[in-house]
Amino acid sequence: MNLDKFKIRTDLAFESLDMEEIQHADEVINDEFEHDKLIIKRTVISENIGKEINRKPGIYYCLDTSAIKTHDHDDLVKCEEALSLIIKEVLKVENINPSQQKGLLVGLGNINVTPDALGPMVMDNVIVTRHMFILNPNEVSEGISEISAIAPGVMGNTGIETYDITEAVIKKIEVDYVIVVDALAAKSVARVNKTIQVTNTGISPGSGVGNTRKELSKGTIGIPVIAIGVPTVVDAVTIAYDTIDMLLKYFNQKLNEKETPGQKIIFSPDKIDFSQAQVPEDKYTKEFLGEFGLLTEAEKVQMLQEILTPNGYNMMVTPKEVDIDIENLTQVISGAIDRSLHTIVDNGIIS
Amino acid sequence: MNLDKFKIRTDLAFESLDMEEIQHADEVINDEFEHDKLIIKRTVISENIGKEINRKPGIYYCLDTSAIKTHDHDDLVKCEEALSLIIKEVLKVENINPSQQKGLLVGLGNINVTPDALGPMVMDNVIVTRHMFILNPNEVSEGISEISAIAPGVMGNTGIETYDITEAVIKKIEVDYVIVVDALAAKSVARVNKTIQVTNTGISPGSGVGNTRKELSKGTIGIPVIAIGVPTVVDAVTIAYDTIDMLLKYFNQKLNEKETPGQKIIFSPDKIDFSQAQVPEDKYTKEFLGEFGLLTEAEKVQMLQEILTPNGYNMMVTPKEVDIDIENLTQVISGAIDRSLHTIVDNGIIS
Amino acid sequence: MNLDKFKIRTDLAFESLDMEEIQHADEVINDEFEHDKLIIKRTVISENIGKEINRKPGIYYCLDTSAIKTHDHDDLVKCEEALSLIIKEVLKVENINPSQQKGLLVGLGNINVTPDALGPMVMDNVIVTRHMFILNPNEVSEGISEISAIAPGVMGNTGIETYDITEAVIKKIEVDYVIVVDALAAKSVARVNKTIQVTNTGISPGSGVGNTRKELSKGTIGIPVIAIGVPTVVDAVTIAYDTIDMLLKYFNQKLNEKETPGQKIIFSPDKIDFSQAQVPEDKYTKEFLGEFGLLTEAEKVQMLQEILTPNGYNMMVTPKEVDIDIENLTQVISGAIDRSLHTIVDNGIIS
Amino acid sequence: MNLDKFKIRTDLAFESLDMEEIQHADEVINDEFEHDKLIIKRTVISENIGKEINRKPGIYYCLDTSAIKTHDHDDLVKCEEALSLIIKEVLKVENINPSQQKGLLVGLGNINVTPDALGPMVMDNVIVTRHMFILNPNEVSEGISEISAIAPGVMGNTGIETYDITEAVIKKIEVDYVIVVDALAAKSVARVNKTIQVTNTGISPGSGVGNTRKELSKGTIGIPVIAIGVPTVVDAVTIAYDTIDMLLKYFNQKLNEKETPGQKIIFSPDKIDFSQAQVPEDKYTKEFLGEFGLLTEAEKVQMLQEILTPNGYNMMVTPKEVDIDIENLTQVISGAIDRSLHTIVDNGIIS
Repeated sequence: MNLDKFKIRTDLAFESLDMEEIQHADEVINDEFEHDKLIIKRTVISENIGKEINRKPGIYYCLDTSAIKTHDHDDLVKCEEALSLIIKEVLKVENINPSQQKGLLVGLGNINVTPDALGPMVMDNVIVTRHMFILNPNEVSEGISEISAIAPGVMGNTGIETYDITEAVIKKIEVDYVIVVDALAAKSVARVNKTIQVTNTGISPGSGVGNTRKELSKGTIGIPVIAIGVPTVVDAVTIAYDTIDMLLKYFNQKLNEKETPGQKIIFSPDKIDFSQAQVPEDKYTKEFLGEFGLLTEAEKVQMLQEILTPNGYNMMVTPKEVDIDIENLTQVISGAIDRSLHTIVDNGIIS
Repeated sequence: MNLDKFKIRTDLAFESLDMEEIQHADEVINDEFEHDKLIIKRTVISENIGKEINRKPGIYYCLDTSAIKTHDHDDLVKCEEALSLIIKEVLKVENINPSQQKGLLVGLGNINVTPDALGPMVMDNVIVTRHMFILNPNEVSEGISEISAIAPGVMGNTGIETYDITEAVIKKIEVDYVIVVDALAAKSVARVNKTIQVTNTGISPGSGVGNTRKELSKGTIGIPVIAIGVPTVVDAVTIAYDTIDMLLKYFNQKLNEKETPGQKIIFSPDKIDFSQAQVPEDKYTKEFLGEFGLLTEAEKVQMLQEILTPNGYNMMVTPKEVDIDIENLTQVISGAIDRSLHTIVDNGIIS
Repeated sequence: MNLDKFKIRTDLAFESLDMEEIQHADEVINDEFEHDKLIIKRTVISENIGKEINRKPGIYYCLDTSAIKTHDHDDLVKCEEALSLIIKEVLKVENINPSQQKGLLVGLGNINVTPDALGPMVMDNVIVTRHMFILNPNEVSEGISEISAIAPGVMGNTGIETYDITEAVIKKIEVDYVIVVDALAAKSVARVNKTIQVTNTGISPGSGVGNTRKELSKGTIGIPVIAIGVPTVVDAVTIAYDTIDMLLKYFNQKLNEKETPGQKIIFSPDKIDFSQAQVPEDKYTKEFLGEFGLLTEAEKVQMLQEILTPNGYNMMVTPKEVDIDIENLTQVISGAIDRSLHTIVDNGIIS
Repeated sequence: MNLDKFKIRTDLAFESLDMEEIQHADEVINDEFEHDKLIIKRTVISENIGKEINRKPGIYYCLDTSAIKTHDHDDLVKCEEALSLIIKEVLKVENINPSQQKGLLVGLGNINVTPDALGPMVMDNVIVTRHMFILNPNEVSEGISEISAIAPGVMGNTGIETYDITEAVIKKIEVDYVIVVDALAAKSVARVNKTIQVTNTGISPGSGVGNTRKELSKGTIGIPVIAIGVPTVVDAVTIAYDTIDMLLKYFNQKLNEKETPGQKIIFSPDKIDFSQAQVPEDKYTKEFLGEFGLLTEAEKVQMLQEILTPNGYNMMVTPKEVDIDIENLTQVISGAIDRSLHTIVDNGIIS
C-alpha cells in the first residue's frame, strides 16, 4: 500500500527524522546547541538519508523560540541574535560574503492572509540598499551590503507562479545569492509560530496546486538559496494525531507510576515532557486505545485523513493570537537578516 | 465527581442540548427552518431546561451559513436576509419597535486580534443615526431609527471591565434596548466562522478572568439585550474530541457495511454525515478504541484537558482564512442589523 | 532663462493644454462628454502638440468624478460604468481584444503610504485568471479573459527599479498588453482624488530619483501600455498658486460688479466657477496684487518654489479623508477594469 | 466688523500669542528650553491674557520635534525623553502623584482616518494596569501606577458625543486625573506632525458640530485634565496665507540686500528663517503685493476663506507621509506617557 500521500506533511527537517526509521543512521548529524536559553538544533541530511526520508540533502538549523514571551522586547532581541548566528553560519557554508556579493531577499506568501503574511511582512522591514549602490555608490557607508528585496505574491492573486516572478527578477538584476522567507505547515501544535528553520536547500514556493510547483534552489537557479521558514499553521489531523500520541504517553506514564488502567483511567493533571516520553507496550496500548492504538503512525494519520478530509473537517488552523505572533516573528527575522548581512547593523551603529 | 469544570464550553444553545440528557424533554422546543437553502434552528429553553443545562432560559436562533461560499456576493446577501429575519423575530419577541425606540449596538472584542475583532468591525460598518436625531431631528428621513454604537474594547487593553463601560454609556444616553455582537468559542470545528446565533438572553462579555465577569442582560440592566454571536475559535481539546468521536462513528459505519474491524481497520475514505451517525456498541468500541473509547463524553474531555492544558497544548485556534471569514461575517451581520432596524434600508432605498 | 524646471508638474494631459499657449491649436482635439452626470474629457495630443507641451502624443481620457458622493454605492457604480466605457474605448484604439489576448495588470506605488497605495490596492481587488488558464484551461467559463496582475513595489523598498521588475515579468510570461494603475501628483487642489485619467501613452513609474526613471510604454516594451492614473497628492506651491489665481479672478468678478477695489477690497463670500473666470486687466492686477500679480504663471510658480522648497515648506499633501477616498477609487477602478476585460462581469453574471 | 469667525483656528497656545497684539504683555511668560537639540516652549496664559486671546488660562508646553528624522530610532527616543519631562512637569503643576492616584488615558479621534487616528493608536500602545490592581492587587510590582485607557471614538461613528462617553466612564470607575491625547488642526504647514503640545487646560473633543461641543476640563469634570495634542492637518487657507506671508518676508529680505524690486522681482532661491523675518514697509508691500498685501492678517485670512470655502477648495490636508508620521508620533507619545506614569518604565526595568 502506498502511504506516501498520507505522510504527515512537514517542512521541518528534524521532524522528518523523528518520524522515520533511518537505515543510514550512522550518517545522521543531529547536534543541539544552546544560546541564551534558546535551543538550536542542527541536522545534516546526507545524500543517502535524503533519499530515505524524501528530503533534500543539506544543512538544516532549527531555532526553538518557545522560551520567549510574546511582547517582551529583550526576549525578542535574544531570538534575533541567535537567528543571526545561524544565518551567518549558513552563509559561511555556502561561501557567501555579503560585503562582496549581491543578495536578493524574497518574501513568499500572501500579505492579506495573516498566517501567510510572514514573508511579505519581513520584506517590508528589512534594510534594502541596492538602489543606493546604483544611484550613489560612493556615498554608501562601510559595512553596508548590496541587498534587494521582493514579495512576489501568490499565484491566486497574481495568476503567475511565484517561481516565475522570482526567477525573472533574479535574472534581470544579477544577484549572487537568495534568502527566502516563508510560512510553513507544522507537524506539531507545539511548533506553530515557535520554531524558525534555516536551510541551504532552497524551497518550493506556492501552495503546490497541480504539478506546477517549482523548486527555488541552487539546482534550479544556479546560485545559493537560503530558506528561512516558520510553521504558522497546522491541520486538524496533526492536532488529533498529536493528542492521541500524548494520550498514549500519558497513559504509559501513569502505568509506570503503578496506577492500574483497567480499573481507573481518569488520573490527575500532570506536566509531562512528551518529547522524551514513551508509548506503552502493545498489550497496554491495546487495552487502553484498542486496535486503533496499535496502528503505526502512518496508518493512524491515514485513517484520520480519510475521516476528516472528505468531510471538510481537516482545516488548516492557526493560533488565535496569530496577529501578534506574526508581528513578533517579523521583527525577529528581519532584524536577524539585517544583522547577518550588514556589519554596520551587527555592530549596533545603525538599527 | 464534579465534572462541571470539564464541560465543553460552548456558547451555542442547541449544542448544549445535544450533549446533555434532558429530563424535561417535553418542554424542549427545537424547530428547524429553511430559508434560501440556509438552515435556521430555533431553540426555546424553558426555566426547567435552563436549570438542567446551566443555560439562561430564552429563545435561541442559529443560522448555519456553511452553504455559502466565501467571496460570493449573492450568497452573502442571502445570509444577510436570513439573519435580518431572525433579528426582526427576536425584536418582536422582546416587543421592541425600532422606529419608536432607541437602540444601542455594542461590539465586544479586540479589534487587534482578528478572530476577536468581529464585534468592533461590525460597529465600524453599521448605520449610526443618534447624532442626527440630536442635531437635526427634523431632517431625519422616514424609516430611519435612532441608533448609537460603541466598541468598548477588552479589559486587557482598557483596564476596565467591558460591562462597566457598557453600563455607564447605557445609563448616560438612555436607550430602550441593546444589541450585542461578539465572537465566541465553538464546540465543533465545523461551526467555526459558519454559525450565527441570535438570542434574547444577553451575554457575559469578556474573557471571564477571575470572578469579575458580569452578565449583560435584561436582568442586570433592565432593558432587553439581544446577543448576536459567532464562534470564531475552537480549542485543541475540542478538535481532538470531535475527531475521536468521528473515528468511532466512522468505524461503526464500516462495521455496518460488514467490514470486520478486528482484521482490517484501515478503510477507504468516505463522506459521512456525522451529525446523524451513531457510535458503535460498547463491545466494538472497546475493541476499536479500548478503555478510552468507553469513557463518557465528559470523561474523555476531562482526560484530554488534563493532558493538553498543563503542557500548553490546548491552544485556541482559528482557521487560516480568518481574515476573509471575519470580513464576510462583518458584512453579513452589519447588513442584517441595518435591515432589521431601518425600514429605509430593508426596502432597498439606501444601502 | 530656463523656466523648465519650474513648470508645474502634472500628469493630466488637459492640464498641460490649459497652461500653455499652443501653436498648433488647429490640431487639438478636446471633446467633452457626459455620462450619467459625470463629465468625460477626451484630449488627443498630436505629434506636433506633443512636442510643444512636452507630452507624449496619444489619446487621453479624463473622468471627473467630483459629482459623486463618497460612500454612496450607486454613485460609485456610475463611476465604474463610465470608467469601463473609457477603458474599452482605449482598448479598441489599441486593437486589443481581451477575449483573445493576454493582459497583465500592473499596480504601481507603495501599499504602506496611503495616498500612494492605489495601484497595489487595485491589484488586490481585480479578477485574476491566468492560473486558471494554465491549470484547468477547459474549465474556464466563456466570457473570462486571461489576466495576470503584479504590484512591483517601489524602489525605496525593493532596491530595484519598478520598470525592471515589470519588464522582467512581462518577458517571462508573454503577455499581449499591459494596463498600469498609478497615483499621480495633481496640478489643482480640486482634482485630488477626483479625476481619473486613462491614456494609451504609457507611464514612467517611480519617483524619478536621479536619471534612472524609465518609461513603461509601447515604445520601450513593444506592446500596448494603457495607463490609469489618479492624482492623489498636491504640493503646497500648487495650492498657493491656485489660491492666488482664484484671488485675482475673484477680484475681477467683484470689479465687474462695479465694486471699486481701491476703496473696499473685502467683499462678501461668493460661489464662482473659477474654470471659466478671467483675471483682471493688468492695471487692476497691479493695483490689487502689485508687481507679483503681474508675473506670468511660470514666474509666479518659480518664485513660490524658490521660497517654499529650500525652506522645507513645499510638502506634498493629501486630503484628510485619504483613506476612504483611496478605498472608493480602488472599488471604482478595479470594478471598471473587470468589466472592461471580462464580458461575464460586464453582463452582471458574476460580480 | 466681527472678524471672530475668520480667526485662524489653532489649538497651539503660542501661535495665538504670535498673532495677537497683547495688552497685558507684562503678564506673558514665554520660556524656551533646549533638551538634546529639541526646542521646548513654555507659555503661561494668565486670566487677563486668556480673555484677550480667547484661550483658557493655564500652562502650555510645546515640543518642536522637527529636528528628528523619521525612522531614526535614537531620535524618537530623544523625543520620548523630552516629552516625558514635560508631562511630569505638568503632572507636578496639577499636584498629581501617579503612584498614589488613579489615572484614565483618553485617546480622542477616529482610528479609521489616519491623520485623526493618533489618540486611539496611542491608547493601543500605552501600558494599562487597572485590571491588575483589581484582580491581583498584591502581585502588582513596585513602580507601576494604576492606569486605565479608553478610545471613545467619534460622534459620526458612535452617534454619541465623545464627551458623554468619557464623562460616563470617568464617573463609573472613579479616577483622580485624566490625560487626553488628540490630533489637532495646525496654523502652519511647518508644524504639521512636528509639534507636540501639552497643557493642563483640558480639551474640547469632537469636530464641534453645531453647538454641542463640550469641554473636557477640570472645570467640567472636577479632576485635572492634561491634554497632549499634535497638529496633523492644515487647511488650504492656512497654506495660502503662510505662503503669502513668506512671499512678503522673502521680498523684504531681497530689498534689504539692495535688490530693487521694481526692476527685477525674480531672485535666486534662499534659505530664510521666516520665524524671525520681517515683512516690508507698507510702501514696498503695496508695490510688491498691491492692496491685498496691505490687508491685516485677519483680513487676508477672511478674504482667502471667502474665496476658497464656498467653492470647496478649503480642504483639510495632511502630509503624504501621514502613515509613518502617525506611527512615529504614537511611539513617542505612548512611550513618554508610560515613562511619566510608571517609575519602573522610566528606570528602564521594563519597556
